[in-house]
This record gives sequence, structure tokens and C-alpha cells, in this order.
Amino acid sequence: MKKNILIVPGDGIGQEVTEVGKKVLIKIAEKFGHEFIYDEALMGHVAIEATGNPLPDETLEKMRASDAILFGAVGHPKYDNDPTAKVRPEQGLLKMRKELGLYANLRPIKLFDELLGASSIKPEILKGSDILFFRELTGDIYFGEKGRKNNGDTAYDIAEYSRYEVERIARRAFEAARTRSKKLCSVDKANVLETSRLWREVVQALAPEYPDITVEHQFVDSAAMMLIKDPRRFDVVVTANLFGDILTDEASQIAGSMGMLASASVGDSTGVYEPIHGSGHDITGMGVANPMASVLSAALLLDISFGLKEESDAIISAIEQVLKAGFRTRDIADSTTAPEMILGTDAIGEEILK
Amino acid sequence: MKKNILIVPGDGIGQEVTEVGKKVLIKIAEKFGHEFIYDEALMGHVAIEATGNPLPDETLEKMRASDAILFGAVGHPKYDNDPTAKVRPEQGLLKMRKELGLYANLRPIKLFDELLGASSIKPEILKGSDILFFRELTGDIYFGEKGRKNNGDTAYDIAEYSRYEVERIARRAFEAARTRSKKLCSVDKANVLETSRLWREVVQALAPEYPDITVEHQFVDSAAMMLIKDPRRFDVVVTANLFGDILTDEASQIAGSMGMLASASVGDSTGVYEPIHGSGHDITGMGVANPMASVLSAALLLDISFGLKEESDAIISAIEQVLKAGFRTRDIADSTTAPEMILGTDAIGEEILK
Ligand SMILES: CC(C)[C@H](C(=O)O)[C@@H](O)C(=O)O
Ligand SMILES: CC(C)[C@H](C(=O)O)[C@@H](O)C(=O)O
Repeated sequence: MKKNILIVPGDGIGQEVTEVGKKVLIKIAEKFGHEFIYDEALMGHVAIEATGNPLPDETLEKMRASDAILFGAVGHPKYDNDPTAKVRPEQGLLKMRKELGLYANLRPIKLFDELLGASSIKPEILKGSDILFFRELTGDIYFGEKGRKNNGDTAYDIAEYSRYEVERIARRAFEAARTRSKKLCSVDKANVLETSRLWREVVQALAPEYPDITVEHQFVDSAAMMLIKDPRRFDVVVTANLFGDILTDEASQIAGSMGMLASASVGDSTGVYEPIHGSGHDITGMGVANPMASVLSAALLLDISFGLKEESDAIISAIEQVLKAGFRTRDIADSTTAPEMILGTDAIGEEILK
Repeated sequence: MKKNILIVPGDGIGQEVTEVGKKVLIKIAEKFGHEFIYDEALMGHVAIEATGNPLPDETLEKMRASDAILFGAVGHPKYDNDPTAKVRPEQGLLKMRKELGLYANLRPIKLFDELLGASSIKPEILKGSDILFFRELTGDIYFGEKGRKNNGDTAYDIAEYSRYEVERIARRAFEAARTRSKKLCSVDKANVLETSRLWREVVQALAPEYPDITVEHQFVDSAAMMLIKDPRRFDVVVTANLFGDILTDEASQIAGSMGMLASASVGDSTGVYEPIHGSGHDITGMGVANPMASVLSAALLLDISFGLKEESDAIISAIEQVLKAGFRTRDIADSTTAPEMILGTDAIGEEILK
């Protein structure tokens, strides 16, 4: 198979982990006889520094021309501490999602058995958890009009959803539920928000088309609690952009660490694959970032964008073997881990490549 | 002390638990020689059934005339399953908050040592956790304009904050931090939302007035994760209405169960004290609901609205004794609890009264 893959490392530890993800892709191509052609592009803070624009046109063009994108992270504390900054790395991320029509963000939350002890949640609560989140990614309060009035003293953000936007993400979630345990949980805040009431209406209206799927509706506050109390209650979860942002980060604790979680953003054309952890400026340059989320993003890329299931499974099993052998990065080590088994980004990358 | 207390049990288990809360208030008045005069009023689904209005004018008048309100819960599955319902119990709740100017919702999350085992989170992660949430309660996407356009195919909700709204809740949080460990964490989504950027601006601008307080800003997604990973990092947390709704429900797991958590909604006049659990229709009428959140709400009422610290502490220590004696309700029992120690709502209420 011949494919164009664009590498967009972005900011902070995005640079460090994406390099490992790319190496794994190169190795897979070698082993399975594919031809992957790589290009690289700037985004986020590094792009602002170089061009003034968090998502330069050149990057967007390269993205459009690619078959899939392996992405790192964007963000920099400089902007976080300055709420008045006009240009921000995140604008690039949001623009990419919108321009490429990446309306479905898939976040599989699966716990590797070896990491049962790494979570703050009790192993007996976690064991067997396996959740697939569908987060809507191009609507909601992220993309509605926002601004100031009253001389800047009042700020507003408009949340908005249209029927077709809810429908297309809900359909993907229903379809996925078919291939899994046939349970779908839709999360909203329909007791308060009009967008949530539309959301619930649409999901309810689709349900008869999927008579084999059991649909449940949960309020976001209750879901945030239940995810921790009893994660095994959940299988496929579908929710709006903002709720998905919060719940999937929270759910990362089910997998032991954010450092283990990959995500796929897909829509009608190319797909973007990225760790759910951010740019991690507190540990940037220290060489300790966990590259497994980037490696698992590469696995998702092969599976979802290229349909290469065997190649994808090979990556997951490599990670399983590294974990079984006892190797850990700092974030997933626990009190029983021997210091010499705690490896840095590149060293654990080498183990995965083996 | 002579005071008027309005009892508003509301819907579902609200009825059952508030009765216990009231009994405890009666007992305290007896023991400490206060004169509490009680009145009762309808709200929520029961008020809709009786009057067509989730918050009848009569209830609102009684509320205005009271010195404090002990509240249960509102809600009914009937409305949840019908996103097109025009009248809903929650409208009464939101209207009450707005009309009474209850802009500050305090939710203390404290784990009773006896319940260390009841949580899904590991005891060694939880031990010593003690968080005080300040959730803004009369602004944000809860109260902005909302509606439909395009023939009902597009729904919108407007989130809005003005400087003074952020300032008054932030000041309360800063003041509270002074009486505790002098750490304040402000939670927002300033990398995406304009309301959050205003929020952050205002908190940053106030900080120099409280030089003794260390202020930290966290994004809501990251805070949702950190709360579970390392709850002891948090002390006083201040956040917007919607984020507060989600994070405090999630944080209930830190206290072992939602059934243990009370909240105070205060502003410029009377205060409303209520459990954070909802109307619990799945267990309504079974007599198994945990009344301790209502009893702890009564304790908060005495402390915050009447300044009766000793009386409030007496209630908390009664609950401690009941837990030490090994009594549990179903929600906080674990595998080590003997069946005969698991009591119903009234029976555990009697133990608390003793
Ligand atoms: C960086 C930020 C804008 C982004 C989001 O909120 O979507 C991130 O948290 C994510 O989940 O991808
Ligand atoms: C019932 C609902 C409207 C309410 C809210 O979202 O504020 C509840 O969840 C709460 O936290 O008091």
C-alpha cells in the first residue's frame, strides 16, 4: 500500500513523542511491505513563532493532500497566562478541525491489564473497562460566535448544534455500538440546555433505525460521577464537543494515565491521529514523556484511515509486550516498579520497535 | 435564637431525606434552646402537578420571607424522556436561584475517615482530601438566552458572564482560602471560551488584593482528570456554573458517595441548603435513600446562615458517631458491612438523632 502521511509534531512534548510514533510507522511499513511517504508541517506555538499564524496555509494544504496525519499537541503556557492574547496555538487546532471537517473524535479508553495498578481507581472497579467515546468535534460552544460587549465587561460564547451535526456523529456511534456490546450511552444536559434537548431528540429519533442497540441517556454531571464509580457500565458513549473534552480527560484515569490514550479525528476526508495528552510544557525537553499515546495513535491511523488491522494490532501487541516485560515510563510507574525499569521517551520507543 | 426555616422537600427522595433533615433541626433547637419556626412549600414536579408551575408565587414569597431554606431535590424522569416538554421541574430550581440571587454555591467535599473504603478511588489517594468548591450559580450558559432557529433544526444556548459576577464569587473563594490552606484553584477553559478568558482576567486582577493566597488556574478538562488522580492537590476551587455542576458531581466520589454531600447556595439574602444528589427516582419510595446529605445540609444551614457553629458541629459529630458505630445506608456500605448494619432512611435518621 502506498500512502502519504503528514507528521505535525506541534509544541512541547508533541515533538518528542511524535518522533517515536513516526519511527514505529516506518518500522511497520518495512515489515509489512508498504510505502509510506512522509512530509512534515508546523502548527501551534512553533508555527506562530515561525510565521505568525498557528495554522499556516502551507500546513493546511499539506494536510488536505495527505492520506492521514500523525499529530502531536499544541499549546504554550505563555498564552494561558495571558487571557488577552489575540493569537493562540489552539486557534490552529480548532481551525484544522473545522477546515478538514473532522467532526468525529474517537477516543478509545482501554486499560492494559499490566497497568491495573497505575490508576488512582481501585483495580477491582477498573478491571475489564473498555469504553469508546465519540466526541463531536466541530460544533458546540467551541465554534459559535464569541466576543465581548459592554466595553469588554461582558463576555459571551454561543453554543450551537444543528440536527445534521448531531445525526452524523450519532450514526457513527450507533454503528460502532453494533460491532461492540450493542449499548450506546448519549450524554447531554437536556434538563438545562436547548442544544442538549435537540441532541436528545435526534438520538431518540435515530434509535428505531438501530433496534438492536440499547440506548441510554445520561446527564453530564451524573456521567462524570458514574465514570469513576462504575466505568464498566459504559461501552460506546456519544457526546457534544465540550462535554466530550471534559469526560475523556477524566476517563483517562481509567486507562491509568493520559500518556496511554490515543484519539482519531475523522470526517469526510483525511484523518488526524493524536495523543489526548497536551503539550506538557512542565516536562518538555526532559526526555521522560510517555510516547505510547503517539504510538497508539499511529496504530489507530493504520486501522481507521488505511484499514490495516493486522499492522495496527502488531503495534498494540508490541506495547503489550513492553508492558509485560515490565518497562514503564514515569507516569505509569508505581511503587512496585524497579527504578531501572523506568525508561525515557526514546528508550521505551526502542523497546517498542524491537 | 428565633428563626424561620422553610422546608421545601421537592420531588422523589427529596421528600424522604428532607424529613430527616428537619427532625435533626428540631432536635438541635430543643437541645440548644433555639426557636425555629417551620413552614413548608411546593417546588418541582409536585408543584407542577398541584399548580402547573414548578415554582409557584406562593413558594417564592415564603422563600423570601424565610431566614433559611432546607431544600430536597427536583426532577422527574417523565420530563427527561421528553425533550420537547415546555414546563419542567428544573425551571423552578433555576428560577429560585435567580430570583433569590443565590450566586454562590458552596460544596464542601470531605471524606469521613470511616468511609475511606466506600469510594471507587484508592484509600491511599483519598486520605485527607478536603475540597471546598465555589460554583457560580446564577450565570453562564444556564441563564443566557436559548432557543431554536431554522424551523427548530438549530438549537442554541448563550453563555454569558459579566465582570461583577465573576468578581463576587471569586472574592468569596479568596476569603474562604484565607481561612483554610491559602490555596485557590480557578478552573476555566480560557484556551477556548471568551467567558473563561474574562473569568481568568478577573481572578488574576483580584489576586494582588490577596497576596497571602497562591492562585492557580487550571483548564476544566485537566481539572476533571486531576481531581481523580490526586484530589489532595485541591483545596478551595472556584469555577463557573456548568463546570461546577460537572466537577462537583464527579468529586462526590471523593467523599465515597453523593449521599454524603451537602451544598449551600447563598447570595445577598436568604440561603438554600440541599443535598447534591438529585431526586433519585429509581429508589424513591423504597426507604433506602441516604439522608446524611440532607442532615449535613441542615448543619451547613446552621453554620452559614445562622452562625451557629457549635450546633453545626454537633450534627457533624453525630454523623461521625453513627458511621463509627458501623451503621451504613446501602450506598455507602461495602463488602465488609454486615447486612444488619445497613439501615434505611428513617432508621439511620433515628441513630443520628440519638
Ligand atoms: C487544546 C484544546 C483546545 C483541546 C480541546 O479542548 O479540544 C484539547 O483539550 C483537546 O481535547 O484536544
Ligand atoms: C437539576 C439540575 C438543573 C441542577 C444543575 O444542573 O444545576 C443539578 O444538577 C444541580 O447541580 O443542582
